[in-house]
Amino acid sequence: MTKSATAIAHPNIAFIKYWGNRDHALRIPANGSISMNLSGLETKTTVTFDTTLDSDTLTLNENPVTGPGLERVSQMLARVRDMAGISTYARVVSGNNFPTGSGIASSAAAFAALALASSSAAGLNLEEKELSILARTGSGSASRSVPGGFVEWLPGDSHETSFARTFAPLESWPLADCVAVVSQAHKAVGSTGGHTLADTSPFQSVRVQDAPRRLEICRRAILEKDFSTFAEIIELDSNMMHAVMQTSTPPLMYWQPATLAVMSAVQAWRKSGFPAAYTIDAGPNVHVICPEGFQQQTAQRLKEIPGVLQVLQATCGGPAHLVE
Amino acid sequence: MTKSATAIAHPNIAFIKYWGNRDHALRIPANGSISMNLSGLETKTTVTFDTTLDSDTLTLNENPVTGPGLERVSQMLARVRDMAGISTYARVVSGNNFPTGSGIASSAAAFAALALASSSAAGLNLEEKELSILARTGSGSASRSVPGGFVEWLPGDSHETSFARTFAPLESWPLADCVAVVSQAHKAVGSTGGHTLADTSPFQSVRVQDAPRRLEICRRAILEKDFSTFAEIIELDSNMMHAVMQTSTPPLMYWQPATLAVMSAVQAWRKSGFPAAYTIDAGPNVHVICPEGFQQQTAQRLKEIPGVLQVLQATCGGPAHLVE
Repeated sequence: MTKSATAIAHPNIAFIKYWGNRDHALRIPANGSISMNLSGLETKTTVTFDTTLDSDTLTLNENPVTGPGLERVSQMLARVRDMAGISTYARVVSGNNFPTGSGIASSAAAFAALALASSSAAGLNLEEKELSILARTGSGSASRSVPGGFVEWLPGDSHETSFARTFAPLESWPLADCVAVVSQAHKAVGSTGGHTLADTSPFQSVRVQDAPRRLEICRRAILEKDFSTFAEIIELDSNMMHAVMQTSTPPLMYWQPATLAVMSAVQAWRKSGFPAAYTIDAGPNVHVICPEGFQQQTAQRLKEIPGVLQVLQATCGGPAHLVE
Repeated sequence: MTKSATAIAHPNIAFIKYWGNRDHALRIPANGSISMNLSGLETKTTVTFDTTLDSDTLTLNENPVTGPGLERVSQMLARVRDMAGISTYARVVSGNNFPTGSGIASSAAAFAALALASSSAAGLNLEEKELSILARTGSGSASRSVPGGFVEWLPGDSHETSFARTFAPLESWPLADCVAVVSQAHKAVGSTGGHTLADTSPFQSVRVQDAPRRLEICRRAILEKDFSTFAEIIELDSNMMHAVMQTSTPPLMYWQPATLAVMSAVQAWRKSGFPAAYTIDAGPNVHVICPEGFQQQTAQRLKEIPGVLQVLQATCGGPAHLVE
């Protein structure tokens, strides 16, 4: 007997970043974060609980996956089986329409889609909050890919209180994300490993203590559609996270020469009146955020910067959802 | 009537950086710092008190200087006139054998040489400590170019207690500095302006509070000739200063794409066993420190990195001194 469900989720780009955990196992974050889901980029995942299986299996972008990648998926499936009171193994087939492991948060979309597809296939009908909590256990930032639009992850202090919710609908402010891809290599240190290093930086505690201030400024800038304030706070927050990374032991340097070229270009554009701002996740690629009306021009300008291999484009995206 | 003296001083490269002041006017620093003087690179300055002059004059690298550059020199001359009880104006002629304003601390060598030449020409015979204090009032890091070898600037809490002194003679550890010059443009924000921004970064107070720990590790590594510990602490300290710069309001980004290329290369070399470490001042150029035996190989490797225009080389240098 089989029970199956398919879900689509979008990656998200954080404007106020998640870096470091209060509880590593449960992924309770050190600080709250704010993000926007990315329409156009997506992960599609089908989960089939199948009584003929004697273990979980994972196929990612048409390649079978075993080892740590499968284990992480199995842990979420085990949690879902517990919740549903079943013991059947599952076949998971997942695919992205964007490059994996290079600073576009593929794990966020992956675990949001997995949380929704697996819980649905298991017969659970979870509310958005419960789904966000479940997704969080697979990858912290996946909690933010469950709700749609502009999302805030409330850090909480326990498994039940740490989840993300929409604070502004996707139509409220038409922003675009032009991702300047400068490397498609898999990153040397993944986010999960990186989070455990955050506390070795002398700057992490200050970054966490100052987070409520940055969240407030960012939230208000989005609600008031104040691009200039928004630009300054997201660049500061990105620089603060990378400062923590670069001063941890061992140091993590995700920036590459072309990363810096894009950062400098964006700052120069804004000085000359062009509305664009950068933010960078745990990888070398640069997310350049602009009002939708400037999206084509931003993408064109980025393509002219030496070292930029391609530009992915997205606008504000909706929540994780079931298909078929 | 004229009285004249000529002095030579070397720039220095800080291993534990000076960034931010407790007192901006007197240049009492927020934290102590450690540096090495750079032999081979030098500023030569002649000061002539001349009763026929009706104002101070400055010639720098054969160009007459007026405005803020002359004013800063005149302030030090006024201080020297006060100390010597004279009122004669001076002609200052100064030249560097290295590029000005691009992250090689030209102002440090300049004000150390000026302090020595002007005080000598005025008939004062200052002790090293007094000279270091005088030099500090012109440019904070100039205090460190007065003594020779490996130098620590004791931050102090007043004009009289903030000066630099040698803590290890230049022969004690033969280190070389290969400066990868990636830009010879004059920097957009000079150090003096930058220091006033330090306190706008959320990270500056932590950087200052943690300084005694880093100073202790660096001092001990130099005394014990422990290159591995030395490399880690100077790279951490450099990254911490640039983190403060990059998170100040407005942010200061001194790194350029080629800066990052050199940083990454040096880290890769060290991982593979080659002893080299980077440190970066308020500019895009990268100082790559290595034991003298590896100097030629380091310079050669640096020249092969795209974006490196030239490599300046120096070893540990002596104190500011009079000539002729």
